Amino acid sequence: MPVPAKDRAGEARHREILETAARLICKAGYEGTSVQEIALACGLTKAGLYHHIPSKERLLYEIMSYGMDLFEEQVLSRVQDIADPLERLKSCMARNVELVTLGASKEVTIILHETDTLTGHSRATINARKKRYVRFLETAFREAMKRGQIREVNPTVAAFGFLGMVLWTYKWFKPSGKLSARQVAEGMVDLLFTGLAAGG
Amino acid sequence: MPVPAKDRAGEARHREILETAARLICKAGYEGTSVQEIALACGLTKAGLYHHIPSKERLLYEIMSYGMDLFEEQVLSRVQDIADPLERLKSCMARNVELVTLGASKEVTIILHETDTLTGHSRATINARKKRYVRFLETAFREAMKRGQIREVNPTVAAFGFLGMVLWTYKWFKPSGKLSARQVAEGMVDLLFTGLAAGG
Repeated sequence: MPVPAKDRAGEARHREILETAARLICKAGYEGTSVQEIALACGLTKAGLYHHIPSKERLLYEIMSYGMDLFEEQVLSRVQDIADPLERLKSCMARNVELVTLGASKEVTIILHETDTLTGHSRATINARKKRYVRFLETAFREAMKRGQIREVNPTVAAFGFLGMVLWTYKWFKPSGKLSARQVAEGMVDLLFTGLAAGG
Repeated sequence: MPVPAKDRAGEARHREILETAARLICKAGYEGTSVQEIALACGLTKAGLYHHIPSKERLLYEIMSYGMDLFEEQVLSRVQDIADPLERLKSCMARNVELVTLGASKEVTIILHETDTLTGHSRATINARKKRYVRFLETAFREAMKRGQIREVNPTVAAFGFLGMVLWTYKWFKPSGKLSARQVAEGMVDLLFTGLAAGG
């Protein structure tokens, strides 16, 4: 059944509010951004904004969920079925660097900064989605070790080393800088998976 | 000349204020923490706090400067004279992971989160100190390549890969977790410098 035009318009408006709020929260932090400011930037009254979003915390939760959706659509779902664990990890790293550098830097910033802002069920839901990614990486590292594709290392250290290299790019990467997103993605994969050892 | 007891007491009090403010700002963010709250937590009135610190932004600058001092004392100054560039890098990584995991996590969090909060001269000063670290790493990577100790890689990607692995630990490391700070430090050094390639 086709989605009625009215629903599509409502959804687009909802997305637009999340985008605007994400921009403000990314800049000043959750605590530093008032509902009043978000409403104003959306061209709404405070009451009008509350018509779309029940609470400020819910808004934050929806922004983080949207960031996790993007990650799952553009990274995880595209690599999780790669049978070769080493290829799965390499492709995952390259795609995730590209998502952070090109796509979703404000959602990523918020997910990374506001970890402890959410409470209760919302917090548990976002944390579970993050943890799933860590487990996915640990499993892939274990499989690659089992196949003899990589050395024996601690899979948790490897997973967080991987994540650190990838996620840190949101801090330093500039689209106008000397390195392209592609160069960073390929460079990081090469750095971790080929390693630094000379004449290897 | 010995420092008069009164000055030492004043300095200790100043340090105490920075520590308290750092704890609050680390939790709620700079914008989310009021001068009133900081004063209250220090057992001072707002006017009393302003007697010690001229402005809220100055307070943030001093917390960040203290974090950078700790880093320079405990990491950079202890490794910068190591003649062998590969040993310099390895020792630097291990010491920096230990600083982040054990020592200065709230100052580190603030330095990393509030990058864009400072303005003017304060901001330029902190950014210059951060940049110095990136240049130090790039130089060491270049020297290690020149000596044939490591493969040819892009020194900027290597420097930010190194930093990502190190600094990300403040996000996930728990002193009560399965891995000790030492294990993480050694694991990260092994991961980056030995690499993942099998049978290397």
